[in-house]
Amino acid sequence: MYDVIVVGAGIAGMTSALYAARLELKTLILSRDIGGQLMMAPEIQNYPGFISIRGSDLALRVMKQVEGMGVEIRIEEVVNVKEEKGFIVYTAEGSQYETLALIFAFGKTPIELNVPGEKRLKGKGVSYCAICDAPLYKDKIVALVGLGEVGLHAASVLSEVVRKCYWIFPGPTPGAISPNVVKYVKEKGNVVLMPRTQVVEIKGDGKVSSILVKSLESGEVREIEVAGVFVEMGYKPKTDFLRGFVDLNEKGEIIVNSLCETSRKGVFAAGDVTNIPYKQAVISAGQGAIAALSAYNYVAQIKGYSRIDRDWKHLRVRHEEEGGGLFLRI
Amino acid sequence: MYDVIVVGAGIAGMTSALYAARLELKTLILSRDIGGQLMMAPEIQNYPGFISIRGSDLALRVMKQVEGMGVEIRIEEVVNVKEEKGFIVYTAEGSQYETLALIFAFGKTPIELNVPGEKRLKGKGVSYCAICDAPLYKDKIVALVGLGEVGLHAASVLSEVVRKCYWIFPGPTPGAISPNVVKYVKEKGNVVLMPRTQVVEIKGDGKVSSILVKSLESGEVREIEVAGVFVEMGYKPKTDFLRGFVDLNEKGEIIVNSLCETSRKGVFAAGDVTNIPYKQAVISAGQGAIAALSAYNYVAQIKGYSRIDRDWKHLRVRHEEEGGGLFLRI
Repeated sequence: MYDVIVVGAGIAGMTSALYAARLELKTLILSRDIGGQLMMAPEIQNYPGFISIRGSDLALRVMKQVEGMGVEIRIEEVVNVKEEKGFIVYTAEGSQYETLALIFAFGKTPIELNVPGEKRLKGKGVSYCAICDAPLYKDKIVALVGLGEVGLHAASVLSEVVRKCYWIFPGPTPGAISPNVVKYVKEKGNVVLMPRTQVVEIKGDGKVSSILVKSLESGEVREIEVAGVFVEMGYKPKTDFLRGFVDLNEKGEIIVNSLCETSRKGVFAAGDVTNIPYKQAVISAGQGAIAALSAYNYVAQIKGYSRIDRDWKHLRVRHEEEGGGLFLRI
Repeated sequence: MYDVIVVGAGIAGMTSALYAARLELKTLILSRDIGGQLMMAPEIQNYPGFISIRGSDLALRVMKQVEGMGVEIRIEEVVNVKEEKGFIVYTAEGSQYETLALIFAFGKTPIELNVPGEKRLKGKGVSYCAICDAPLYKDKIVALVGLGEVGLHAASVLSEVVRKCYWIFPGPTPGAISPNVVKYVKEKGNVVLMPRTQVVEIKGDGKVSSILVKSLESGEVREIEVAGVFVEMGYKPKTDFLRGFVDLNEKGEIIVNSLCETSRKGVFAAGDVTNIPYKQAVISAGQGAIAALSAYNYVAQIKGYSRIDRDWKHLRVRHEEEGGGLFLRI
């Protein structure tokens, strides 16, 4: 039985775990990956404390900090949860874990195409992150399914590297974006805009070799040889399994109050998976801390510890109080 | 005319300024000091990204980051503000500044004794931070006016360093704290507990030489020679000048919503000066970012820029959009 299980290992989840562990809660992180969206940020300039840092470097620094506190991290994807003398958490890997409190901090995941071949060829030519994987396609031909500014950003990144990029989108334009920036990408000469089209299948034996593209005007389907398919249609929270368990907003985000409490007692949430405005690393980190302190108060109430004074910068750890020694730490 | 003036240069204020400047708002920081409460933290272990860092080191790192973005920092204490075609801010130093938006992030300040001699001898033997200044009183005799756990912490820190510490408090005990930890401090032998007493004057010519202590039982006043007086009665937000300007709670904290908006349009707040629960460095930093993004949206509305999409990690800076170049940054 854990005191708290944190679902997700991005900056929100890892900060939650750091705080929970420092308060001596028995803490487990379950996550499908480490670092979350930080891993896709080539350079972060607005995280206070670092003039410039790679997202992956920041993630690994925080991971070490968390591991140093004795937090267990398991790479397992949580797929279900139920309340029963605390909570039981089920993972895609077939395990189940029990906990008193839960913190959901699993961020957002890329929106998928949902076409044949996509799942099978994920990581074998199908990518959801141009900025991470573009360098693997130097001088090759790729397709981009991208919408809005996310798509535009991907097109720009790819245009610097690949020989040719087919930019596939269903409308007459790639979305509500500045005509000037579209022009800029067009002028590079290696991006082929394909309005009113969609990918209907991804083909390949072991790795991507071609795509089937359908014209939304004529209905005609055409095969195009590509070495990679980039899907950049934005992100959404993968919260379907939580519908009915906690309140979600119309975007599927978990609704939290300023204490990072969800609609269900004992369940907290932090970071991009929540309805918090402005998705930023430092904001997610702050929320992670709030969620952990709220979770501590919840667990403390069950176990009969004294409640943290909200104004306390110096959190006294309970065993120190009980032990009679004086040891305050920030 | 500034786009935004940030009042305060702790982690909340500096993060606000960092974000505002990155969004190309013309930004000024006005603060009575640099670093705020960070300067009093000898070691921080729970700021994600640093396994261990001195508070002052973190403050200076963030200050460099902010200065690198071209933010102006002036050491002036804001004492008044009024709304008039934007806002006019008045400082104790006699200057006034105009701005479209305001972010209050000036944290909390130590509660003072309000006795004769205190103001005059501040920094000359009168200290509000045992952990900062205790080393200056090695083997000397000092007085501590301390309540609750803050006072206890100070007593513990002082007992390691000074020859003798008179611990002065008005009640029968120093406050609602664990008897075990009081016992621990007592056993050190150099802390003299003085229940039902209060300091009525601090004396000294250029520096503290003695205090007048009154017994709350007999009314008798007695002079005690001390080299220093530590006042550790906790912190409060110095927001009296904002009463009637923005809504405050019963503790004098500025009330903000989840967007860090106050009750007055164009005025935002972040960090320990607000009613946000759990005062922690990383939480203040997160709030600072939120306040700046909200201030940007407010200024953008006035100036006619497009509103930041709340889901955007990649904030496009407006001149880049107008200039036709493509340049996305995290």
